[in-house]
Amino acid sequence: MSELGIFETIFSTRSLRRLKPDPVPDAMIHKILDAAIRAPSGGNNQNWRFLVVKSPEVKKQIQDVYLKGWRDVQGMYKSRKAPEHLGEERLGRILDAATYLAEHMNEVPVLLVACLKAPPMPADIAARLGRLSGSSIYPAVQNVLLSCRALGLGATLTTVASLYDEEMQAVLGLPKDVSTYALIPIGYPRGKFGPVQRMSVEEVTCVDRWGQAFTGK
Amino acid sequence: MSELGIFETIFSTRSLRRLKPDPVPDAMIHKILDAAIRAPSGGNNQNWRFLVVKSPEVKKQIQDVYLKGWRDVQGMYKSRKAPEHLGEERLGRILDAATYLAEHMNEVPVLLVACLKAPPMPADIAARLGRLSGSSIYPAVQNVLLSCRALGLGATLTTVASLYDEEMQAVLGLPKDVSTYALIPIGYPRGKFGPVQRMSVEEVTCVDRWGQAFTGK
Repeated sequence: MSELGIFETIFSTRSLRRLKPDPVPDAMIHKILDAAIRAPSGGNNQNWRFLVVKSPEVKKQIQDVYLKGWRDVQGMYKSRKAPEHLGEERLGRILDAATYLAEHMNEVPVLLVACLKAPPMPADIAARLGRLSGSSIYPAVQNVLLSCRALGLGATLTTVASLYDEEMQAVLGLPKDVSTYALIPIGYPRGKFGPVQRMSVEEVTCVDRWGQAFTGK
Repeated sequence: MSELGIFETIFSTRSLRRLKPDPVPDAMIHKILDAAIRAPSGGNNQNWRFLVVKSPEVKKQIQDVYLKGWRDVQGMYKSRKAPEHLGEERLGRILDAATYLAEHMNEVPVLLVACLKAPPMPADIAARLGRLSGSSIYPAVQNVLLSCRALGLGATLTTVASLYDEEMQAVLGLPKDVSTYALIPIGYPRGKFGPVQRMSVEEVTCVDRWGQAFTGK
């Protein structure tokens, strides 16, 4: 079987949050992780660490942390208007699917947790790097999502559980310098892959300075 | 021409830091950005904003900020040992290429700056989300890198300039709620694409809890 094309994959990788409980072979998870670690990381440090969670007990504990974070995030969404480009109805559908995922998290065959081990660095640089630290893990996570799509597996990037990172560290037995950055539920999808709808490039791009239109065609 | 396969692309997307000054067509940049915005973003907010910098004057100003950040980072690397999996020689080669890039930044045809507009949210969630905010921009950046590779363009993910984000905001005329997260120099490569060397999956993966080996084959 020839592999899916790069753009075909990118343009059809939607978040799939309704997953079947059927098991996913370890060999597929291995292939997904082997693709993940081809992503860049700062200074090629490769401080990413991954946990492949399949134990029902650990999944249940993760779900408890997730539900706690999800209640915080749900409250936030309910307290504000939907972004204009989405509208209340479309946002509502996303939130419904996310709630479904939260409530069925323990039935998902594989919960992949992506972590970063903090490298030693001066405090002043560490403070300025905080929001940039994800540059050494989320590119790998995107490779995970694309690989899942290419292998016919549903997945979605979530950060909700990491709002309670200390509880996640306890559940997973992580050392203090290893923090969770993403939880990616992986399984065969109930829904379908399909074209990803977005605002246009022109709506989010400028040339040279803010406010100068980019057309590019 | 059929497009490159997804895994073939992922496994050969190396950071290419030595780039030719030859111009890159706007249509290619448009295609790259069209792929970028298929990535996920928290709540599908699509708060990413991109600046396509081609003006020699703006490039020079960005280079000045970059060089300042690069001196900080270089100092950090010089003050500590190379990670074991790299060794001093391999790290030295990476640092040499990065220094070359910093010194030739103004000659790179396109500097793509990836930004995030901070969504309104309660302060307590914002504080916990800080290090997680990159989850809504770095997946898009990874799509940029993979698309460049597929189109035969060299690129690399850098965060050095964002150490001085306020200066970048001034150079690019960004509103206060828009921060830079990555600077991706894009151009035709002097070097070659090739297999990406990494530690093995087994070295960075556990099953269920920290310390439990994953083999997956």
